[in-house]
Amino acid sequence: MRLRKKPWIKDEIITYDRWVVNEPNEYRGRWDEWFQNKAPIHLELGTGKGNFVVTLAEKHADCNFIGVEIKEEVLIAAVRKSVEKGLKNIAFLWFNINDIEDVFAKDEVSRIYLNFSDPWPKNRHAKRRLTHRGFLEKYKKILNKGGQIHLKTDNEPLFEFSLNEFSEQGFQLRNITFDLHNSRFEEAKKVMTEYEQRFVKQGLKIYRFEAVV
Amino acid sequence: MRLRKKPWIKDEIITYDRWVVNEPNEYRGRWDEWFQNKAPIHLELGTGKGNFVVTLAEKHADCNFIGVEIKEEVLIAAVRKSVEKGLKNIAFLWFNINDIEDVFAKDEVSRIYLNFSDPWPKNRHAKRRLTHRGFLEKYKKILNKGGQIHLKTDNEPLFEFSLNEFSEQGFQLRNITFDLHNSRFEEAKKVMTEYEQRFVKQGLKIYRFEAVV
Repeated sequence: MRLRKKPWIKDEIITYDRWVVNEPNEYRGRWDEWFQNKAPIHLELGTGKGNFVVTLAEKHADCNFIGVEIKEEVLIAAVRKSVEKGLKNIAFLWFNINDIEDVFAKDEVSRIYLNFSDPWPKNRHAKRRLTHRGFLEKYKKILNKGGQIHLKTDNEPLFEFSLNEFSEQGFQLRNITFDLHNSRFEEAKKVMTEYEQRFVKQGLKIYRFEAVV
Repeated sequence: MRLRKKPWIKDEIITYDRWVVNEPNEYRGRWDEWFQNKAPIHLELGTGKGNFVVTLAEKHADCNFIGVEIKEEVLIAAVRKSVEKGLKNIAFLWFNINDIEDVFAKDEVSRIYLNFSDPWPKNRHAKRRLTHRGFLEKYKKILNKGGQIHLKTDNEPLFEFSLNEFSEQGFQLRNITFDLHNSRFEEAKKVMTEYEQRFVKQGLKIYRFEAVV
């Protein structure tokens, strides 16, 4: 892990070693040992302040959740929420998503959530988008058979780009909606990120789809 | 064929029997005989006044085009254009698309165009949309291996519905765009329907995708 900006965050995070995994590579292929059970593993890539993944972990005790976030100054908020709630089925990792195959083995993950990922609007930055085919190839390796990726964004160009990338990489898309909060997908409406709560209040449309390997 | 409203159209259409096929069921499985060559067959379902399919027929002498339109009072305009241009690689049929399997045999068609199809906005009419799975199952039968369906619409709900239906029916989607006329798809911009010319002048967005069997 690489520390930046605010050293006091490191000091605080270290005290939460039940929730934050310092050397995630060590658990590659044996995350069930870390969680001490064989429940399915669901990742959120770019967890931010963690509202989404923490809410899911509270709702679904039968799954293990892992939030990945490179910015420690926002991750700390997600960790604090989990500590307060005493959640046992959640962990936070702090690495660059480019290296995801060093942290998860083949077929180790059941679901990946991509919520309001950075759209990287310039074409020359397309490879940095978390839905670029370079990332999708990595996700396909760590996802098990029937594994899913659920995407939400308010950014239409990123949504359009992502539909193309997922389709061309052979994922089957389903439950595509251009306006989640005016759609029939009642369950998916209930669990929101911090961004999403703000966007919905402003009346902005949230795009969403699910992709199956 | 069923005649409605304006009997004089029937009289005119009858004179164009080189372009309008009166008993299309008779050519099921042997459209190459009608065209007198084995070029790939491209259909437009809901040809309207025919600008799109006539333009394609002019550009692509190496393909055979068939425009299908149930409203004879607009079809006549498409036929007149083809007569004026003396096109030999185009035919017009006049039947209900529900019956498409009575007109084309398995694997007989290479491409289907669906342009600005009626969105049938009420849920209880969803089955009438030309991208409903009931139709997609029929299209899959008449399309050959690698056959494609190209869709354009200005209607966002129909586009969203269609993405879902095609994905769930196992088509691979590609070249999805939410704004064709501001996209990189230069070839697809060039051939417009009558509706599309009007919508583009008004600054409306045209959605488009291609689906591969």
